[in-house]
Amino acid sequence: MHQSHAHQASRLQLNSQGDLKHFLSTEGLSREILTAILDRADSFLDGHGGIRNEPVLAGRTVMNLFFEASTRTRTTFEVAAKRLSADVLNIDISKSSTSKGETLRDMLWNLEAMTADIFVVRHGLSGAAHFIASQVTPRIAVINAGDGRHAHPTQAMLDMLTIRRHAGDFTGLTVAIIGDIRHSRVARSEIHALQTLGAREIRVIGPRTLLPRDFEELGVQVFEDLSAGLKDVDVAIALRIQNERMESALLPGSSEFYSLYGLTRERLKVAKPNVLVMHPGPINRGVEIESELADGPQSLILKQVNYGIAVRMAVLAMSVAGQDAERAQGAST
Amino acid sequence: MHQSHAHQASRLQLNSQGDLKHFLSTEGLSREILTAILDRADSFLDGHGGIRNEPVLAGRTVMNLFFEASTRTRTTFEVAAKRLSADVLNIDISKSSTSKGETLRDMLWNLEAMTADIFVVRHGLSGAAHFIASQVTPRIAVINAGDGRHAHPTQAMLDMLTIRRHAGDFTGLTVAIIGDIRHSRVARSEIHALQTLGAREIRVIGPRTLLPRDFEELGVQVFEDLSAGLKDVDVAIALRIQNERMESALLPGSSEFYSLYGLTRERLKVAKPNVLVMHPGPINRGVEIESELADGPQSLILKQVNYGIAVRMAVLAMSVAGQDAERAQGAST
Amino acid sequence: MHQSHAHQASRLQLNSQGDLKHFLSTEGLSREILTAILDRADSFLDGHGGIRNEPVLAGRTVMNLFFEASTRTRTTFEVAAKRLSADVLNIDISKSSTSKGETLRDMLWNLEAMTADIFVVRHGLSGAAHFIASQVTPRIAVINAGDGRHAHPTQAMLDMLTIRRHAGDFTGLTVAIIGDIRHSRVARSEIHALQTLGAREIRVIGPRTLLPRDFEELGVQVFEDLSAGLKDVDVAIALRIQNERMESALLPGSSEFYSLYGLTRERLKVAKPNVLVMHPGPINRGVEIESELADGPQSLILKQVNYGIAVRMAVLAMSVAGQDAERAQGAST
Repeated sequence: MHQSHAHQASRLQLNSQGDLKHFLSTEGLSREILTAILDRADSFLDGHGGIRNEPVLAGRTVMNLFFEASTRTRTTFEVAAKRLSADVLNIDISKSSTSKGETLRDMLWNLEAMTADIFVVRHGLSGAAHFIASQVTPRIAVINAGDGRHAHPTQAMLDMLTIRRHAGDFTGLTVAIIGDIRHSRVARSEIHALQTLGAREIRVIGPRTLLPRDFEELGVQVFEDLSAGLKDVDVAIALRIQNERMESALLPGSSEFYSLYGLTRERLKVAKPNVLVMHPGPINRGVEIESELADGPQSLILKQVNYGIAVRMAVLAMSVAGQDAERAQGAST
Repeated sequence: MHQSHAHQASRLQLNSQGDLKHFLSTEGLSREILTAILDRADSFLDGHGGIRNEPVLAGRTVMNLFFEASTRTRTTFEVAAKRLSADVLNIDISKSSTSKGETLRDMLWNLEAMTADIFVVRHGLSGAAHFIASQVTPRIAVINAGDGRHAHPTQAMLDMLTIRRHAGDFTGLTVAIIGDIRHSRVARSEIHALQTLGAREIRVIGPRTLLPRDFEELGVQVFEDLSAGLKDVDVAIALRIQNERMESALLPGSSEFYSLYGLTRERLKVAKPNVLVMHPGPINRGVEIESELADGPQSLILKQVNYGIAVRMAVLAMSVAGQDAERAQGAST
Repeated sequence: MHQSHAHQASRLQLNSQGDLKHFLSTEGLSREILTAILDRADSFLDGHGGIRNEPVLAGRTVMNLFFEASTRTRTTFEVAAKRLSADVLNIDISKSSTSKGETLRDMLWNLEAMTADIFVVRHGLSGAAHFIASQVTPRIAVINAGDGRHAHPTQAMLDMLTIRRHAGDFTGLTVAIIGDIRHSRVARSEIHALQTLGAREIRVIGPRTLLPRDFEELGVQVFEDLSAGLKDVDVAIALRIQNERMESALLPGSSEFYSLYGLTRERLKVAKPNVLVMHPGPINRGVEIESELADGPQSLILKQVNYGIAVRMAVLAMSVAGQDAERAQGAST
């Protein structure tokens, strides 16, 4: 990412006091902000797999704008918002006025006028969440729930929370991400977050066709060989292989992928003894990961889902607080 | 409208103390009732674009019965109901038992028995909301969210609120409605409300094919020429042209419509200097209205949406109160 | 049902103190438990057709997992959960990750990790609810909202509540169930509940093709002749004839069914004078039941719907309490 992009992303996400007011990407956010998100998320976890409710969004309206369907991600945001006592509306974009020729901007302005406080945005186009954040008035906080190949920052942050809670401080950690790095919004958001939080080394592992072309710029180590890439890692994150990718020429069949890049207990023997195993889900058993490994003691896959609720609560609560502070500031000057 | 119709509509909408218990149409409601709705709506506006919540419907269940899809209108009612602390259920009519051969009456009775308090009804047939109100027991308040070509009374009332807040008292005002008057439920509801509230003159402007045939009975002035119709008006309301109408023989193409009836800054020069510009949305830029006008200082289009939440809160709260009073009355006698 | 099945069903549904923790079927539950459910449901009825809210599930998350669409049943559970102040999420199974190749178990585990407290399950396969209850961790209470031909226990219990409130104690009652007994999950659940609650005699009436093959094991009296079967009954429950059944070879046309098995005022003259008439809905007027009878004074059809909210509130509240007690027990030992 060019410096100017990062600067712009930063400017858009922070209010004049430097606090979060939109959550669009992990790029451009400082270690302080990312750490503050993790701390806030931690505060919602009760330590027994449960989540502490906190009614900080009572009377506030969250609108889920999913231009691309994702029941899983939408559900996590819906649970998170309700645990903060917000009202949640799922806007059925496909049936809404945009299909009657209304422009996207008009749709957004109308939803704003209906007194929304937060837009949770999922879109198939990279940059859509940034565009929407640039269009809305300061009343609305925008949260990126995944846009194109660009970013999926709440997924990245729940992975950071998982690593911090189970491996401790980032500065000493070697983290490997395995699979389709090139087309993954999760991978991009994770790499930025890991770098900002100070991870010692970030590796990406996969067939040449699925590795990023800009790896030097990204500052990651590239491995086509799984065993070499897993050597001495503290954390191994397997990415989901999209079915549509499998059917294209970019990938061999799923069994060949498994034989070359599937994570197994056997292959992880070259990693650190207590290596953590992660996956953003939903998992393809026997494709990206061995079934026994996914269900075994090293696997944090379901913890990730659980922490995901807390991370989404954190960014919802912090963004609204940041917008409120900005508005109060504006009113007093 | 015949006297008997108005009388019947009035009887159905008011309880024995003369208070609102259903909100079905602006027809048959007195100036006192319409003014009370506007006053109640005003009480929810905080003056800074926000809405004051009031938990008067806590523990009450609102069921949205949308026999005709309208994401926009449904969303406004959902927001309004939640801001009153009601529980809201969107009943998926297309998948419900009526498709299994259940009659409409049986469906209504079943939803009643599930302890609904309010039905918000949208239907493609004129009179559907009145029919439903005539079938339910006194426990349920029915709100018309648009029925056929007949009425869309909450849209009319939010327009009245917009006019009252920005132009003041109705008695001196000349209001023009432009576009497809003949097929518009909004226009009909607006005309009745404007008359009841005492507007000085109501004009309808459009091509002959889209003007109402019963304009004399309606008591409106008819103009086929836009400039003549806009002369000295205080308020200009452009209606949405339905795409399906555009494709029929009733209308020329959209660019020809714009050249003859599209509202522009230039054409509004014949109107009063501070003429207010309104549109029920969603707008077709460059068809009913010039884009710069829609976004300009005279435009109240987004205010209308915002006031729409307050108006829906008002009719929901008032109708339930009216049903409660009626039931209490029945219990004590 | 074999003893071992009943024992297993019992074991799965009760916690170590013998209280309800899942509600999967009426089979295997004692008279004490069924009576406790009816008592709890009674406590929610205000005696005037209304339901008393009780915020016992505030902060809890109910997830509706409807693998088979049923707007009617889903709506009743949604109303019930909201009246207990729970947050409710309708998971769109058809669009969820299972369609991306995720296994059912992985989907359940993921929803659990999102901190669900209750799964309300509807499934086309018999035994699905039991399977799901056997897979989830002790944090989640599972409620069966209908599975295949197997069970629809909340429907059975709302029928029991209806009978108890209107006919009093079960021990003197003769109850007839009319229609498609063989394929009905409702009939099976009712028969078990009636037997457990001590009904004197249970009759099933219908054409041979729709009568159960295991009636001796079920302990019911079988009648192919309606008049003979209705003789001296206290309660007559007409089941809904599924349209798909009507079109198969198992049934004559709907008018022939009505002439042989349709419940009418005339035919009920052989029953007890105050015979109660019930139907799980939605009714086919003129097929299973005469229209005037359905709307007449003996009909409890809409009461059943109303009591259904209370019964669902009861099993939701009791199951969560049972899981809480179990977890507290586990924590203290």
